[in-house]
Amino acid sequence: MYDQYLRPGECLDDLLIDDLKIIQHADGFKFAIDAVLLAHFATLKQGNSTVDLGAGTGVIGLLLAARGAGRVVGVELNRRMAEMARRSVALNGLADRVRMLEGDVRAIKGLLHPGEWDLVVSNPPYRPVGWGRTNPSDALAIARHEITVTLQDIVDAAGYLLKYHGRLAMVHLPERLVAVLKTMSTAGIEPKRLRLVYPSVERKPALLLVEGIKGANAGLDVLPPLFIYEAGGDYSREVLGYYRTNR
Amino acid sequence: MYDQYLRPGECLDDLLIDDLKIIQHADGFKFAIDAVLLAHFATLKQGNSTVDLGAGTGVIGLLLAARGAGRVVGVELNRRMAEMARRSVALNGLADRVRMLEGDVRAIKGLLHPGEWDLVVSNPPYRPVGWGRTNPSDALAIARHEITVTLQDIVDAAGYLLKYHGRLAMVHLPERLVAVLKTMSTAGIEPKRLRLVYPSVERKPALLLVEGIKGANAGLDVLPPLFIYEAGGDYSREVLGYYRTNR
Repeated sequence: MYDQYLRPGECLDDLLIDDLKIIQHADGFKFAIDAVLLAHFATLKQGNSTVDLGAGTGVIGLLLAARGAGRVVGVELNRRMAEMARRSVALNGLADRVRMLEGDVRAIKGLLHPGEWDLVVSNPPYRPVGWGRTNPSDALAIARHEITVTLQDIVDAAGYLLKYHGRLAMVHLPERLVAVLKTMSTAGIEPKRLRLVYPSVERKPALLLVEGIKGANAGLDVLPPLFIYEAGGDYSREVLGYYRTNR
Repeated sequence: MYDQYLRPGECLDDLLIDDLKIIQHADGFKFAIDAVLLAHFATLKQGNSTVDLGAGTGVIGLLLAARGAGRVVGVELNRRMAEMARRSVALNGLADRVRMLEGDVRAIKGLLHPGEWDLVVSNPPYRPVGWGRTNPSDALAIARHEITVTLQDIVDAAGYLLKYHGRLAMVHLPERLVAVLKTMSTAGIEPKRLRLVYPSVERKPALLLVEGIKGANAGLDVLPPLFIYEAGGDYSREVLGYYRTNR
């Protein structure tokens, strides 16, 4: 029934939430648990207006819409990705609330109005250029390394978009924690919630989830650890919960 | 046998490591697990020269000496505390390696030489003036609030004392994580190791342990969580280990 939405090489995956489906390219960048964790970590009030910077497949925007966002705009530099994300929006019947724009986060001023958004989210490239090997496949390199957009670019764009006391939520690497907190705080988006995501109880964290509030005072709430797996190797109860309900 | 070292109102407590004892005032500030965790978290090579900023009872210096520090200097503003710490050093027979100076961290340049120390540690006052109630007992207020020394003062003093690639290790509140990382990084002491201390698996962290290296590149190693208690309420195996051996 969804064949009309798919192009050669693409497949349809199930988000396991609200019957949402997503189109992904079999050989290209696929969304990972990072995006799912971020979409559930961000503080979202019903009807909030939200922007996803570097939207990729569009998965975060779909999940935010399922959680009750009133309006979602995804900004994606790659024309083919933006177009594919647009088809994912259409096949889920969410075109009235979710828009996928082809555009450059560094040129956000030409795309969206300033100071009117409640929530900006981003699952950005994690590694500065020069950290580790760069993926020989261009699209994957752009998703993983700060080639076309940096942490500073994301935070600056969020500072432009957010209303006073609006929120920026990101997922990133623990290795980058200092830069993440420093860049946000210096830009006036004070980090207020931090959660470290651990594969299991004895391991180092694999990811960080952070949310800052534009114009807030200092003082960080570091939340209990989020464990992805139980001792037996299954997803933890908390993560499984993300795949059951829409809130 | 230690009566000669004690003044009225003071008691002798056992550090449970290497037969170390410490003098504390029954009604005054007593060292807490924070100091023990910090003394074991700091990277210490045999023979390292170390400074403890805001030494209080002197407990951290004694533990660092037990772990193999070659030279330890504690700096303590309160004359009575510094003098009491000096007696703790004497009764443990460590006067050849550990000195307790009465002095002001904000006037460190008059006390110690710059650029020659391997490790600076500090268990500083955790709360800015105005965060929560100030303790009506002056000595306790000074230990808990940034009345006589701030985070910035500690980091500036460490920047002065440390040799190139020397280390600053601190224990602090998770609430202050943004300020801790930003202040260190901005002062050129790049945070390289971070460990969050959780009371138990489901709870928020109670403390953070951080170590920065003067002149290092960015890139933070976030360590596995440190749990203070087991599910049954006993100290965890890791924390118990701190009380058994001297390394």
